[in-house]
Amino acid sequence: MRVITSLQEMQDLCLWLKRAGKSIGFVPTMGYLHEGHLELMNIARRENDVLVTSVFVNPLQFGPNEDFEKYPRDAAGDETKARSVGVDYFFYPHVDEIYPMPLATTMTVNARNSVLCGASRPGHFDGVVTVLAKLFNLVLPDRVYMGTKDAQQVAVVEQFVTDYNFPLQIIPVPTVREHDGLAKSSRNVYLTVDERAQASQLYASLKAAENLIKNGESSADKVMNHINDCLADLLESWAKLDYIALYSYPDLQPIQVVTDRLIIAVAVKFSKARLIDNIIIEVI
Amino acid sequence: MRVITSLQEMQDLCLWLKRAGKSIGFVPTMGYLHEGHLELMNIARRENDVLVTSVFVNPLQFGPNEDFEKYPRDAAGDETKARSVGVDYFFYPHVDEIYPMPLATTMTVNARNSVLCGASRPGHFDGVVTVLAKLFNLVLPDRVYMGTKDAQQVAVVEQFVTDYNFPLQIIPVPTVREHDGLAKSSRNVYLTVDERAQASQLYASLKAAENLIKNGESSADKVMNHINDCLADLLESWAKLDYIALYSYPDLQPIQVVTDRLIIAVAVKFSKARLIDNIIIEVI
Repeated sequence: MRVITSLQEMQDLCLWLKRAGKSIGFVPTMGYLHEGHLELMNIARRENDVLVTSVFVNPLQFGPNEDFEKYPRDAAGDETKARSVGVDYFFYPHVDEIYPMPLATTMTVNARNSVLCGASRPGHFDGVVTVLAKLFNLVLPDRVYMGTKDAQQVAVVEQFVTDYNFPLQIIPVPTVREHDGLAKSSRNVYLTVDERAQASQLYASLKAAENLIKNGESSADKVMNHINDCLADLLESWAKLDYIALYSYPDLQPIQVVTDRLIIAVAVKFSKARLIDNIIIEVI
Repeated sequence: MRVITSLQEMQDLCLWLKRAGKSIGFVPTMGYLHEGHLELMNIARRENDVLVTSVFVNPLQFGPNEDFEKYPRDAAGDETKARSVGVDYFFYPHVDEIYPMPLATTMTVNARNSVLCGASRPGHFDGVVTVLAKLFNLVLPDRVYMGTKDAQQVAVVEQFVTDYNFPLQIIPVPTVREHDGLAKSSRNVYLTVDERAQASQLYASLKAAENLIKNGESSADKVMNHINDCLADLLESWAKLDYIALYSYPDLQPIQVVTDRLIIAVAVKFSKARLIDNIIIEVI
């Protein structure tokens, strides 16, 4: 595995790989890699000649009161983990080279961004598509692997790729979970032992909602109320509810009647960690 | 020469060309091709394995009161001319395929855009970079050829390419002129015979300014006053002045003292045509 920090070196290499007819799989990350990231890399490894991963904590996608400075970082650990799953090129650019000066042209996301986590993070997805435009142009991937734990991010980025005709495919990969169902996340390290024990209720409530729908419930309100009931104990003693939501997917439009493809999502705040989870369901 | 209208066909072909190690030269145009465009294509032809040109009148870069509907079009003539200079692929996409729905992510240019022609065309360069992002992703060029007649456009697009790390070079090509110095332009067809006879004074005034600087004048105001004097007859009887301007290039910052690299530009309005011209000067 080769570690690359220079933008020019990364792009020259990928141009050369393309000319040599190699397919490039790409896993962009903010580092502090866990099994969720490694699952993306394992799949990308199988489907492409060359595997590139990037670690870049993107300041543009953090709000002024968010955890950019505190976001967990572990460059050495990330390198070891990336090497273990067969990454060819570990792209670790410096923020001063990604953003040497204010961008003359800025990007603004106007759809799929104002619900779920986007509602409380104005400008977040502007930062996401901006850095991805740059990374796509530097790494020139054929396929980009993204986890559906951040389902809204996948929906926004898929639309961005379509809007601007990027010559690549976004490959959504299902959430990797702990044995008790808790979605893997870099932010899980902030949970106390007790909170960790309770946190599996998030996924349990989503599976309960899915079962309700499979048994014939078609009212979105009733499905969301059922999740609220499932989370009652957790919200009484351990966490504060941020949202329970049900939308069409990937359009993220509100729906009253459960039909077609939809996302059910929850977000709660523990003492030091805000956790999100979701499931995407096809209703026949 | 192959005429291509499908976006998917264009992109698949260019991906295949890249994989085969071919370099791609690209000349994006709005059609109604004249010798200025053909000069871009001649240069691109020499410097690349494959030559792609596009003809697309981009509605996004026209203001509500501008000449989008009236912009001159001649698809058959354009094809013949492109074939004559050895274009391999003539990309002629339909507006409904370039913009099938409103873009979810929009682009906004915030630098180099508020002077010269940009001052009176709010949103113009937003439309330019938007369509170029799409065309770059469809055609995957190594080199993109643009005329410095639209010097502000070259400055904005060069910054855009740098901002977003597009894997390509912008190649600026000097303005092609008629025998009397008039810059070639699709809009010259709107000039009356009398106006056409007078129009050469635009370039003559710029050359006079250049001579003044070469003879030691360093005051930007005096240089602009000299152009105004040179244009006195023209402006009295034939045309209305839009602007005489002098800026650093490519930053397009106002300067008092003539130094380094600068652009001198003029714009005048005849009865049915607005003409622009400029020269870029290196002052040692």
